[in-house]
This record gives sequence, structure tokens and C-alpha cells, in this order.
Amino acid sequence: MKFDELFLSPHQDLDGHISALIHAFHETDDSRLPYDRAHFIHQLSEAGMPSGEASLADYVERLAGLLPGISHLASPRYMGHMTAPLPAYTGELSRLLAMLNQNPMKMESSRLLSFLERESLARLHRLVYDQDDAFYQAHMHAKDSALGVMTSGGTIANVTALWLARNRACGDNLFALAAEGWRGVAVLGSRLMHYSFDKGMDLLGAGASAVHRLPVDEHNRLSIPALEAELARCKAERIKVLALVGVAGTTDFGSIDPLPEMADIAQREHIHLHIDAAWGGPTRFSSRYRDLLAGMERADTVTLDGHKQLLVPLGTGMLLCREPGLMMAVKREAPYAIRATSFDQGRFTLEGTRPANALYLDAAFHLIGVSGYARLIEENYDRARLMATLIEADPAFELMAAPVMNLLAYRCIPPHLQGRTPDESDNIQINAFNIALQKRQRAEGHSFVSRTARSVTRYGEQPLTLLRAVLLNPQIRREHIEALLAEQKRLGAELAQELFT
Amino acid sequence: MKFDELFLSPHQDLDGHISALIHAFHETDDSRLPYDRAHFIHQLSEAGMPSGEASLADYVERLAGLLPGISHLASPRYMGHMTAPLPAYTGELSRLLAMLNQNPMKMESSRLLSFLERESLARLHRLVYDQDDAFYQAHMHAKDSALGVMTSGGTIANVTALWLARNRACGDNLFALAAEGWRGVAVLGSRLMHYSFDKGMDLLGAGASAVHRLPVDEHNRLSIPALEAELARCKAERIKVLALVGVAGTTDFGSIDPLPEMADIAQREHIHLHIDAAWGGPTRFSSRYRDLLAGMERADTVTLDGHKQLLVPLGTGMLLCREPGLMMAVKREAPYAIRATSFDQGRFTLEGTRPANALYLDAAFHLIGVSGYARLIEENYDRARLMATLIEADPAFELMAAPVMNLLAYRCIPPHLQGRTPDESDNIQINAFNIALQKRQRAEGHSFVSRTARSVTRYGEQPLTLLRAVLLNPQIRREHIEALLAEQKRLGAELAQELFT
Repeated sequence: MKFDELFLSPHQDLDGHISALIHAFHETDDSRLPYDRAHFIHQLSEAGMPSGEASLADYVERLAGLLPGISHLASPRYMGHMTAPLPAYTGELSRLLAMLNQNPMKMESSRLLSFLERESLARLHRLVYDQDDAFYQAHMHAKDSALGVMTSGGTIANVTALWLARNRACGDNLFALAAEGWRGVAVLGSRLMHYSFDKGMDLLGAGASAVHRLPVDEHNRLSIPALEAELARCKAERIKVLALVGVAGTTDFGSIDPLPEMADIAQREHIHLHIDAAWGGPTRFSSRYRDLLAGMERADTVTLDGHKQLLVPLGTGMLLCREPGLMMAVKREAPYAIRATSFDQGRFTLEGTRPANALYLDAAFHLIGVSGYARLIEENYDRARLMATLIEADPAFELMAAPVMNLLAYRCIPPHLQGRTPDESDNIQINAFNIALQKRQRAEGHSFVSRTARSVTRYGEQPLTLLRAVLLNPQIRREHIEALLAEQKRLGAELAQELFT
Repeated sequence: MKFDELFLSPHQDLDGHISALIHAFHETDDSRLPYDRAHFIHQLSEAGMPSGEASLADYVERLAGLLPGISHLASPRYMGHMTAPLPAYTGELSRLLAMLNQNPMKMESSRLLSFLERESLARLHRLVYDQDDAFYQAHMHAKDSALGVMTSGGTIANVTALWLARNRACGDNLFALAAEGWRGVAVLGSRLMHYSFDKGMDLLGAGASAVHRLPVDEHNRLSIPALEAELARCKAERIKVLALVGVAGTTDFGSIDPLPEMADIAQREHIHLHIDAAWGGPTRFSSRYRDLLAGMERADTVTLDGHKQLLVPLGTGMLLCREPGLMMAVKREAPYAIRATSFDQGRFTLEGTRPANALYLDAAFHLIGVSGYARLIEENYDRARLMATLIEADPAFELMAAPVMNLLAYRCIPPHLQGRTPDESDNIQINAFNIALQKRQRAEGHSFVSRTARSVTRYGEQPLTLLRAVLLNPQIRREHIEALLAEQKRLGAELAQELFT
């Protein structure tokens, strides 16, 4: 478009077109344009840089061509993603935030929004750590206090936690640690820890193998005896344990590690305790379920993700710190920005310049708030229990773990293996069957669950392919769940014909 | 608001209010509500979680109360920030992107947008590396090729570059390296390298002191003799050099390191060459100025920032890789996501779940494109030259470096020190004068430049306070520049009265 028109207000038509695009998109699902790599590649394979002559109308047309190929994550028949459908006001808020384009790295480039960010972090800190008014008045806006930091997501929050834990335990130079005779460092947690911890320990120079993934009990919770044994082994081998990691809502099962016992051990051993509550943190909003997270308030650091159960757009992670001075372990400065004497949040954050996503949280806190989040959590946990009941009542399915939150692991059983306990060779067949089934359901595009590969105690160490339902969308009704399961039975019957006859 | 109404389309009023808020915001500047920490703290100090009873109208009222306190970054009288004023269509695009809420970490949760991301990265790769059509057709969508990765910003892009460089040079475990007799690792570059490199080397377990900040020449470019000497010293001391870092547009001066000479040395020594072109990369769009970046195409990795001179919202960084297989050095997988057999971009990115900001790039490429970006670059570089001329013509100012791009370092000289060469004690006075001046100008809120502390060769090693103008906003006209300088002269005269009489 004409350069001089770029900064003029867009023609009203653009507005109308965007609304129409959003509306049309939400009316359909992925079956409108099923995933076809060759087709998608053909559509988007232009490496040249356009001249810039496209008009807004041309670009709206390009958008209209893109949208059918995009994932319909907000459909109530898609129960496999951890991505939230967003409240309708989010679009307008996003428009405002983009046009303000504030940078909360520095006070200078965000001003009042830096204070809003600190206030939002304080509200979440209180949700998790529940300190008194005097604590928050003392620390919310104090120069060298950080009740937490905003991150682009749970991965950077978890990496920041490891970074903090390492710098507290042994500083930023592993060569110095090696010179003292240490043979390595480690973080300990269950084998269900998120893969961001592997990435983090790789990044930190400790090696991805420094993530010690320990056995779980029959409820998919870290085994405390295994943890004690591993701590003893690390001591004996001169491996410094940087942190214990507890998961509050595993990605596969929604299980919660034994947080009080882990807190006792961390305290006894003077080791940093980090809780990855990216999924499960908002459980704290529900008086019915909040006790599930007992012990979390003893963690040194806690990861939350706004873009999961807090219903804000992607890009909104948080690391909370129990002690307001903890972040000083990673404080940095630069002469042209982020002065030591400043109040800049950028002194602590792993990222530098970043969008002011705290505004999304602020809006959600006011418009959804305790009552809305409690209802969201409770209704979703009820939905998961309903789905578990339907699965257990049908021999075509096997529930792989009782639901703790709103994640459900199950699998489909082909007709000829129903009604008996599968042996190892049956499980190999069932794995192949579930992979094919999940792919076919995804390809049809009417409904969706994801899949994972994990062992569960009743089948020993054998890796099993599991289907994974995420009951996050408040618009999911009983009939959506029934339809999804019915579709799996139909596809399963077809597949069994093809695979086993 | 009522939970059941959250997912209904927002009332048209919200739309009208948001537009009115944006319009009113852009009509004012920071003088409407000058920075006052006590006032801001008083306004935002509520640590309790709201119940969620606020209506949309209530929340619009809260927004209206927040906006006067937010930084007016897009004003053409604010020449101190690296944050772009955004084209007017950005708001609508942001609304669309928020409501689609796609997650390009996984093919499954973004589908066609993953291909769009790869296409956008290919366009930028071509801008920097200029390979032929066959190269892009072979690699743009190949499973184990990555022409680059999207990041939340330049910091994560630079950290990713260091991570790649380290894993290529010596793997992910520094204890193994120490056991081989290495005493440390290092990256070498000029003292003007961005502070994200210190953060990165801290994070990587090498210690922030592993960033060897070397002297610059009189044009603020890395000294090649100093680089050669440092390489020899590292060899002698058994310190492994992971990467050379060249800056294409230093944050303080806009200077560009001697990239061809650095590429020769990197090639000779088999060391990873990274170019931080977060600021200067888009210079490639201009046929008049693109030769400034000669040699960049020989870098292993290049950082770009969309949210600087590409005019897209904050949160859009990129790391480009010359060789499409390079990213395999940091590839990771997870069973419930990011399968090894997948095409998921999440196999390579430091971040996990993240917003689909490539759509902003795609829109900008089509609507601004080569012609628009070339004009932006050239007009802004001309603006910087104009401002330099005005500064040089006035004894109240001292230009600290001839402009290379559109960043300008200068300072104000108090009346009693004008017309002579300042000595060390004069410079101490001038530093205090410029700090006070910049703070006073910022406090008034009518116009803004930032400040930094650096030495420049003509005054030896003495740290000097410099004012820093960023000529990024295409709406800056000659009269804005003249008004800003006139304001500084007025404030300078007032200050000189207070400080020196």
C-alpha cells in the first residue's frame, strides 16, 4: 500500500472484513480443508520479498485464503490442545495493546504499565503464596523486590527457574564448580516433567542428561523413595543438585506430585524447590479443589501460564518467587537501558524487550476473576469426570488414569482385544491402532484429541500410546464428548477391519 | 462479567470505546500525566484478586484511567526509543491473531500458519543470504531444515545463537569440556555488544565474564588487532572461543563492526560467526545503504527484530541460519508433542508454545514490502543526517559520532564550556549536566531522547553521558527535530543557572 497511508486510520472496511473473517472461521472446523502437506506447501512457497504494492483489500483476500488451513482450536469438539478459547473481549483488548505497543522491560517505555505488571504479579503471588497485606504493600513496588517476572511462556519461566536455582547454588560459571571437584549438576523430578527442563539444562551447560527423570507411583506422582535414593546417589557421586522439580498438573495425566513431601526434603537438603504449575496453578481459584495443590506455597519458584487455564492469549507465562529478593541472583544491567539505579523489570527478566501482556491478565482478573475461574475449573473438572465415566462404561475404551484435574489419558481397544487384559504383544497392536486412529480423526477434522507415549504402572515399563483429552473449553457439552467418543468407535471399527482382518 | 457472556461477541460499544481510547491516546503525550512514582504506586497497589464482577463498561473505565500514564512511544517528538510506531492496520490484524490464538510450536496447533512461518523466515533468509530459488525450494519446508526460528525478541535470538554455537563447538555439557582441560569458554566482540550476550553466557554456564568485550576504533567498530590478540590469548590460556559476535547497528551509535574481516577470521579459525543485526538488518532493503552490511551474508547466524525497523508489534524476533541443518544442534523432542518424526518448529525453538507472530511479518511484507522499507530506511537515515547537521552547527551541542544509520549520539554543552575542548573535569560537569537535562526533558513529557554512558576515542577511556536519538518514526519532520533541540537548549540554559552559578 502507499507508504504515506500506512499510518492513517484503516478504512472501516478492514474492520468489517476482519470481523467477518473471525466469524466465518469460528463457524467451521478443520474438515473444511484437511491437513495436506503438499497442498499447504504449494500454497506458501514464495521466498521472494513482495514489493509492497498489495492493498488492504488484497491482503484481506490473502487472509481469507489462509484461514481455512488454520487449526480450529476453539471448537468444542477439539479436546486435545492446551490452548484456551478466548473470551470475546480479547480481540478488542489485543487491538488496543498492539496500538499502544508498550515495552515493560523499561519504566521509560511503559511507565504505568510497569506498575500494572507488578500489581498483576502480586495478585498471582497472593493466589499462590497468600501472604498478608503488609507483605504486598512492602514488596509489590519496591525497587529490589520481584514477586515474579513475566515471560513469553512456561518454557522461559521454567528455564528462568533453573537459572535462578543454579546461580543461587553455584553461580554462573560451571568451570569454577568443576575446579572444586564437582562432577556435574542435576535437577531431580519425575519422568513426567515437561521437556522444557531438558532444554533448560542443555542451555545451562549442564547437559540435557542432568535432568534426572525418576519413577512415579501408580497415580503418576513422583516416587519419594526414588527421590531419596537419587539424592543419596548424587551426593556419593559429587553431583550438585540444583533443584527439585514438582509438577502440579503433568501434561500427560494432570497428576500432581507429592508437594508437601518434596517441600520437606527440599528444606532438609537446602535445595531450591520449583513447582511447574503451568497447567494446574489456577486450581487455587476453586475452594473445592485448591487442596490438591497443598504444599505449593512452600516452593521457591512457581511457573504459571496465562494462556492455559487463565484464558489469555498465547505469550503470557509467569515465574513467581516466594522471596522477593530471589531474582537478584540473575540481575543484569546495561548502560543505555536497565540502569542499576532503575526500577526496570528488565533487570531480572531473561527476555529483554517484550509486549505488555500483563494487561491481558488485568482484564481477565477483573472480568473473569475468582468467581469465573472457580467456575471454569470446577465445571471442567466435572467434564473430565463425566468423560471418564463414559469411557469406563464402554469396553471399546480403556481409561489409563483416574482424572485428577481436567486431563484424561485413555486409549481405544480394537474389538478383538476387548474384554480381556492385554499382554505385551496385545499392547503393541493397541499402540499401532491408537496411532492410526488419532491420525485418522485428526485428518477428518471434525474432532480432535492428542496422543502421547507413556508407560503406566499396571503394564510395567512398556511404552503405550495414549489418547489425551484436555477439557478446557467451557463450551464443551456432554453431546460433544459423546460425539467424539462415538466418532472414535466408528473410526476404530473401520480401522480394525483394515488392520486386523 | 457473567461467565456465560464471556464467549459471546462483545457489545458494539466495546469497539467504539477502544477506538476512542486509541484515538485519545495518540492525541496526547506524557506531559498529560508526568511520571510520578508515588502517584503511580498509589493508583496500582491492589494485591487481592477481583471477584470478577466488573462489567465491560467498568473495565473500559479502568483502561481510560490507565492510558494517560502509559508512555506515548509513537509520538514524533519521542526520539529515544527503539519501538516502532505501527501501521494503522496492525490493530485489526492483532485482533484477528488473538482470536485465532494459533500455536506454531506444533503443526497440529497451527497447521497452515506453520508453513506461513517457514515462508516468512525464507523471505528474510533471502534478504540476508540471497540464495537462489533452488535453495529455497529445497529447504523452505524440508523436515530437517530450518532457515531460522521465530523468537520473542532479539535477546532470545542472541541467546539461541550462543546456544547453537556452544553445542556445535563442544556439546551441552561444560563439565565434559572442563575434564578435557579447557579452562573456560568465551565469545568475542566489541565492547558495544548488547547486554543480552552477558545474560546468554551467564545462562549457558560460562559466566557473564565469558563475554570478552574488546576495544573499538574511532568509528565505534570492533578493533581487528584487538580481536586477533584476544584470540591468541584465549588459545594460550585454553579458553575455547565459541563465537565471534559482530554488531550491525550498535545500540549506542548505530555503528557496524568490520564484518568482512570478522568473517575471514571466523573462517580461518573455524569459529561460529554471529551477527546481531536486530537494529540494522533492514538496511538490506535499501539499494543506497545495503553495502553497509557487506559480509553479513557470511555469518552462520543473524539476529533480526521485527519490532524494530520492520514495524511489527513487540514480541517478534528472529534468528536466521545460513545453513539449513544448523538448528539440529539443539533439536529436542517430547512424547506428547514435538515428535522426532514431525515437522514441528518446536523441535528447534528455545521457546515452546508461542503466538503466531509470523502473520504480522507476512502482512508487513505485503503491505510495506521492499519499496516501503527502502523508503523508511532511506528517509530515516536522511533524518539522522539532518539532525547531525543541526547539532554540529550549534555550539550548545557536541556530536559524538557521525551517523552511520539512524541512531545519533550527542550531548549538550553548558554555556560556560562551549567553544573549547573539554578536559576530564569539564567532562564530569558535562555528564552531570546531561543526566539532569535528560531527566528534566523526560519529566516534562513533551519530547524525549534516551541516554547512555560510553567512552568515545577522542576523550580516551573516560565514561561520558551521551544523549541518544533514534530516528525511527517516519512521521518525524524537520520541525520536530528543531523543537526537540530548542527544548534542550531552553532546559540547558535553566539548568546551567541552577548547577553552575
